[in-house]
Amino acid sequence: MSAGTLIAVGVGPGDPELMTLKAIRALARADVVAYFGKAGNGSNARATAAPHLRSGVMELPLAYPVTTEIGRDEPAYRAALCAFYDEAAASIAALLDAGRTLAVLAEGDPLFYGSYMHLHARLAPRYRCEIIAGVTGMSGCWSAAETPIAQGNDVFTVLSGLLPESELARRLAEADAAVIMKVGRHLPKVRRALDAANRLDRAVYVERGTMADARVMPLTEKCDDRAPYFAVVLVPGWETRP
Amino acid sequence: MSAGTLIAVGVGPGDPELMTLKAIRALARADVVAYFGKAGNGSNARATAAPHLRSGVMELPLAYPVTTEIGRDEPAYRAALCAFYDEAAASIAALLDAGRTLAVLAEGDPLFYGSYMHLHARLAPRYRCEIIAGVTGMSGCWSAAETPIAQGNDVFTVLSGLLPESELARRLAEADAAVIMKVGRHLPKVRRALDAANRLDRAVYVERGTMADARVMPLTEKCDDRAPYFAVVLVPGWETRP
Repeated sequence: MSAGTLIAVGVGPGDPELMTLKAIRALARADVVAYFGKAGNGSNARATAAPHLRSGVMELPLAYPVTTEIGRDEPAYRAALCAFYDEAAASIAALLDAGRTLAVLAEGDPLFYGSYMHLHARLAPRYRCEIIAGVTGMSGCWSAAETPIAQGNDVFTVLSGLLPESELARRLAEADAAVIMKVGRHLPKVRRALDAANRLDRAVYVERGTMADARVMPLTEKCDDRAPYFAVVLVPGWETRP
Repeated sequence: MSAGTLIAVGVGPGDPELMTLKAIRALARADVVAYFGKAGNGSNARATAAPHLRSGVMELPLAYPVTTEIGRDEPAYRAALCAFYDEAAASIAALLDAGRTLAVLAEGDPLFYGSYMHLHARLAPRYRCEIIAGVTGMSGCWSAAETPIAQGNDVFTVLSGLLPESELARRLAEADAAVIMKVGRHLPKVRRALDAANRLDRAVYVERGTMADARVMPLTEKCDDRAPYFAVVLVPGWETRP
């Protein structure tokens, strides 16, 4: 019996309608559907793909052992996550060895800041893989905000809200356009960095970008500092627009 | 009679299967489908969407007056393009005033380096708009290349091959992960900048990323300097991978 195929299925930013035909067709032929999520909290990727899952398909939930960002550079955190990805890859390998076609659901695009990448690094050397690109979360956000983000020869940069304030400010000042991900509790720092980089006035705050209850506003009009982990700030470029 | 709706339809990177359900449904309800292209050369976006166009739908091709990148900073070039976008927006406005639902096809994602943005800037203040996010060309490229691009707190940067060599080198050295777009005739310069930034060894060259005849190779194995305008170079990050 020959080994099965691993399919990374980008499900897009959260709206089931923003899934691609290719993703939907992959789910129709998968024997097993795997997805990451927080234990007891469900999986965003599964919720997005739910309308397209075959009834009775085998599911393989992969529950993160730790999800907080605090201490992620600590050896114990890294070791726990590494062991988790090793185990997840081993479970998937056993199913592939049994000839199954296994789809891993990935929020956004599988190879852009996605957990699937940890499985890919472990399994791609040994198994046949297909990657199905998806609409990224950031595309979902600037589309919901109707905010053109970059044009022409703009330099566009993606930054994490976890970066130090001085580094954020320096990189924001050098980019024509930027997206700051993982804003969450770092919002006060992100504001200060945007101000230092002279970018605060054009910053747009987006929360739950492609959900029905999305919130979009100029950052200067957001009067509190409460922001969920996945909130983003858009800094549109295209300064030469007509 | 109330004015119609303008829908920006991201058609993704070129594979019709990478169109979203939302894009396909928008084409099913559009009275008019508009798209940019080179005169006499067809439109990539239309070719991608072709399987999903309604038979007999009204089409509005928008043919660029100039498409070469040479001299794009010259006032005459900018004036010609500006007049072209003004005329295109006026044609579309007339159809919207007549109550039509008009879809503008956009390669990749409409608000990420897309020509649609020029129409949006002119029409969004006056008409109801919907933006349908799409899979970007760069996602299509790194998926075809099966190259994980960025992870964790990586700083990810999109650069144009038209930037000066010293600026490319400096920005490449500062980014964890990067994509260089519009490589074309700038390939020798791009190689030198990657080398100066100590990124040449990990660079991946991708041509026609999501076409059936895609070419993917380590840049160091590409023995000539011929590259089409839309070739890209990927510089994967995620240096802490297990």
